[in-house]
Amino acid sequence: MKILEERILKDGLLIEDRILKVDSFLNFQIDVELTDQMGREFARIFRESGATKVLTVETSGLPVAYATAKYLGDLPLLFAKKNKPNTNIDDDLAAEVKSFTKEVVNLIRVPKKYLNPGERVLIIDDFLASGAASLGLLDLIEQAGATCVGVGIAVEKEFQGGRALLEAKGLRVVSLAHITKMKDGQIEFHYTE
Amino acid sequence: MKILEERILKDGLLIEDRILKVDSFLNFQIDVELTDQMGREFARIFRESGATKVLTVETSGLPVAYATAKYLGDLPLLFAKKNKPNTNIDDDLAAEVKSFTKEVVNLIRVPKKYLNPGERVLIIDDFLASGAASLGLLDLIEQAGATCVGVGIAVEKEFQGGRALLEAKGLRVVSLAHITKMKDGQIEFHYTE
Repeated sequence: MKILEERILKDGLLIEDRILKVDSFLNFQIDVELTDQMGREFARIFRESGATKVLTVETSGLPVAYATAKYLGDLPLLFAKKNKPNTNIDDDLAAEVKSFTKEVVNLIRVPKKYLNPGERVLIIDDFLASGAASLGLLDLIEQAGATCVGVGIAVEKEFQGGRALLEAKGLRVVSLAHITKMKDGQIEFHYTE
Repeated sequence: MKILEERILKDGLLIEDRILKVDSFLNFQIDVELTDQMGREFARIFRESGATKVLTVETSGLPVAYATAKYLGDLPLLFAKKNKPNTNIDDDLAAEVKSFTKEVVNLIRVPKKYLNPGERVLIIDDFLASGAASLGLLDLIEQAGATCVGVGIAVEKEFQGGRALLEAKGLRVVSLAHITKMKDGQIEFHYTE
């Protein structure tokens, strides 16, 4: 998605060729118009997937997941939380996720009653790197006996291996900005149209 | 907002007359169509506020804040995070927030560069109870030398005192579902039109 690639080149901040900060438009501060366009694009791409629900994990994937659910005809949007709030009296589904940037293991959870057998679930997230977050969400979907119909990612860092892991599970993975290389402060994309 | 009040009565779960769970449509699972209507309503209410930015705190206020920013003409949406990620190399503004439901003190943070003097900031959040979260956000706004132009809340529990604290600071507080009482499993609203 050209406008996203251009925005990453303009406003993204590359740290030690390893971490890409997009705080000014995708994380912390959200560019609402851009996010809306990303949601519209994901909806176009996954229109025929038969998705009945959109799933993401808190926090920064939430706006683009919301916009996608909106453009897919107001699908229910479910987000996994990273720790168990004490207001939760339901049985939860839980999966482990190792954070790439924070180097910690989080437990992600959703109440069982919001993921059910037969549901067709579209995963939407802001970043795909090692794939840990998406694999954790997939784990929740499989535990529920539901089906994952695809993975939509705003910004993919392919060289960190996540796509390969997800595709090995037979999943369709679509990223709007597909980064193949971050080196010497430069970002290279796999351009798709 | 009648449809929100009705939804709370239909799907809200009251725990010990103290905690209201709205996990099935506002938190965990988001009803996208309802959230969109709430965003549209906040935009109508705050249209003349001259807001230049919408501010919320992660996580569950994010969808309705996003929808509000969208209907206010794609305003930038900023969300405070509850702990400092190690990818953050910027100077942050920080404020303390005592969580009502979790009985812990969180630090909320936004990068300084995203809140600036002269900005007119609209706070949007899913819940108003003790007012701690909104007061923390107000603290960030004031530290930045910006102005808070109002507080829009999806579900207010007035009897927990937050409104009084915010109005004492001269703020306009508007809630879409204004609960005056939760007792014996019953919820009473202050109906507004």
